[in-house]
Amino acid sequence: MERFRAYIKQYRETVDSILREVAEKKESEIDDRFNRIVYAEIKRFLLSPGKRIRPHLVLMGYEGVTGESPDRDVLLISTTFEILHAYLLTHDDVIDRDEVRRNQPTVWKSLEEEFKKFGATSRHTAYSMAILAGDILRSLIHEVVGQADLPYKLKSKVCSLLGRIDEVTNRGQVLDVALSFTPLNLVTEEDILRVYRYKTALYSFNGPLGLGAVLGGEDEDFYREYAIPVGIAFQIRDDILGVFGDPEVTGKPADSDIKEGKRTILVWYAWNHGSNREKAVLEKVLGNEEASEEEVQEVRDILVSTGALEYAEELARSYVSQAKEALRGLDINPDVMEMLVELADYIVERNK
Amino acid sequence: MERFRAYIKQYRETVDSILREVAEKKESEIDDRFNRIVYAEIKRFLLSPGKRIRPHLVLMGYEGVTGESPDRDVLLISTTFEILHAYLLTHDDVIDRDEVRRNQPTVWKSLEEEFKKFGATSRHTAYSMAILAGDILRSLIHEVVGQADLPYKLKSKVCSLLGRIDEVTNRGQVLDVALSFTPLNLVTEEDILRVYRYKTALYSFNGPLGLGAVLGGEDEDFYREYAIPVGIAFQIRDDILGVFGDPEVTGKPADSDIKEGKRTILVWYAWNHGSNREKAVLEKVLGNEEASEEEVQEVRDILVSTGALEYAEELARSYVSQAKEALRGLDINPDVMEMLVELADYIVERNK
Repeated sequence: MERFRAYIKQYRETVDSILREVAEKKESEIDDRFNRIVYAEIKRFLLSPGKRIRPHLVLMGYEGVTGESPDRDVLLISTTFEILHAYLLTHDDVIDRDEVRRNQPTVWKSLEEEFKKFGATSRHTAYSMAILAGDILRSLIHEVVGQADLPYKLKSKVCSLLGRIDEVTNRGQVLDVALSFTPLNLVTEEDILRVYRYKTALYSFNGPLGLGAVLGGEDEDFYREYAIPVGIAFQIRDDILGVFGDPEVTGKPADSDIKEGKRTILVWYAWNHGSNREKAVLEKVLGNEEASEEEVQEVRDILVSTGALEYAEELARSYVSQAKEALRGLDINPDVMEMLVELADYIVERNK
Repeated sequence: MERFRAYIKQYRETVDSILREVAEKKESEIDDRFNRIVYAEIKRFLLSPGKRIRPHLVLMGYEGVTGESPDRDVLLISTTFEILHAYLLTHDDVIDRDEVRRNQPTVWKSLEEEFKKFGATSRHTAYSMAILAGDILRSLIHEVVGQADLPYKLKSKVCSLLGRIDEVTNRGQVLDVALSFTPLNLVTEEDILRVYRYKTALYSFNGPLGLGAVLGGEDEDFYREYAIPVGIAFQIRDDILGVFGDPEVTGKPADSDIKEGKRTILVWYAWNHGSNREKAVLEKVLGNEEASEEEVQEVRDILVSTGALEYAEELARSYVSQAKEALRGLDINPDVMEMLVELADYIVERNK
């Protein structure tokens, strides 16, 4: 990932400074004490230390098809993906009731603290403010697109594309929320792969690369045959690390997916290939926030003994091969090609 | 309002059929059982019997500046305002935890029933699904703009304008939620008028008329000097009817604003001009869901005795005069001019 990391390093400051400008310009428009709190929170969250992978995939997508370094307008448009991401995370954290993200309070949690000072004690008020903060964040996308000095036809395409990506990501969310309360025997492999496709492959890989391709004059699905399998592989690896990863390395606890009862490909496989005794353990422990470390370990053992881990690893590898195979067929800038190969390899090897 | 009503009658079917087409096209794309529920709900809500005033103000705004009847593309774009409205209401009903809208269940309430069949019993799940349904609704705007056969420059303007309207409406929402927990002595008249400006004047009047003006080649603020005061007057009248209206005529209970403790211009005036005894009653009864009919009546009496009702009525009348005065200065189609005068007069006279 050396080249990929170097690429992010090269543009990250510019991307962040554009995000800062957008947020500060907005903040300066506000003339009431309550929206000032919400807009300050929007700025904080937008600039919090995320990986900024998506805007950089936009830049790479552009450079891949044009062979040119991104200019100011392409950089500007690339930040719309970070804004889209911030809005989706803001709503996601309300939905999951998560209190921490990027080692900092989530938007609703932070707003809860702020509005407590004004006498708002209900959690529902905090959620409400975060719903609105997310909605405001999304509306900033148009602000940014409006600022760009690009042909109107292209701007119009960018708007439509971001709208479609937004929609399909939310479809993934609907499915993800729904699967969380669906009994294991009614969850299909296709359900799980669909969530991976919508929430990770389309949203985090094909979306940004496609936006870059569009900015470079190509079709939004130019990178699709690469992006979809790479995205699915990424999510499978993520789910493996969520159970078998080293918390010291991943930065995430290795029991939360199990305690939340997250429907992953591992769980699906284990359930469908486990003995009755194993199924009973899965049913008892998955989704039990009070599960002991022993019980969690028992689930891990079942994910190994049923062959679920092996199946998932093999599936991820095969998606990565498929992605690399597709990549070879693309006529793109060789530097970008190398970075995308590196990214694909990294995805199945990574430990964090 | 005869002309205005006849105008709505003339286009309503077309507007509704476009909305139906959009919703059905979307529904047909869905291939999983959970999103099918969400998209069916989106369709139901989008087509539920609202007044469709906003899309018709778009059409009027267009006809005012061009003198021409709206063509298919203008009609298409006018529906984006109804979609925007549906998304905002969906989130609003989660925020207010309202269960009924347009005599039907709200989106979250309806989704709660649907997902119960799949074993989802938590109210938070219902809210979550409604947040996502609202987000999906919002993304459909781009779908519609994308379909229109209009110059790209115009489409781009439409996207930016809708983005700004969306943002400012949410600012109004933030303020509205915040005022609900702000003690009466800290609420200013400017706070309340700002909510009226953002949530009603800019969103419901200047926004749609301005979108119509833009479609007709004029500036988005072409109607502003008329639209802002008319919108504020509309909201003041709304607040009067919310307390003094006849529930048989308005279709709304006449005690809910008082029991919710809604911060209106009436309440602000009464608080700032009431005796200590009257203030004590206002503090005790406003926001008390358990208030008796006697207590509610006592508040009504205070709103009269302090002169709050008179003040609000006079304020609404003066905004309407201001609006009509501004209207005279506009060079627009005479039929539209007449409808807008009619609308302004209706606003202060209406009993529902």
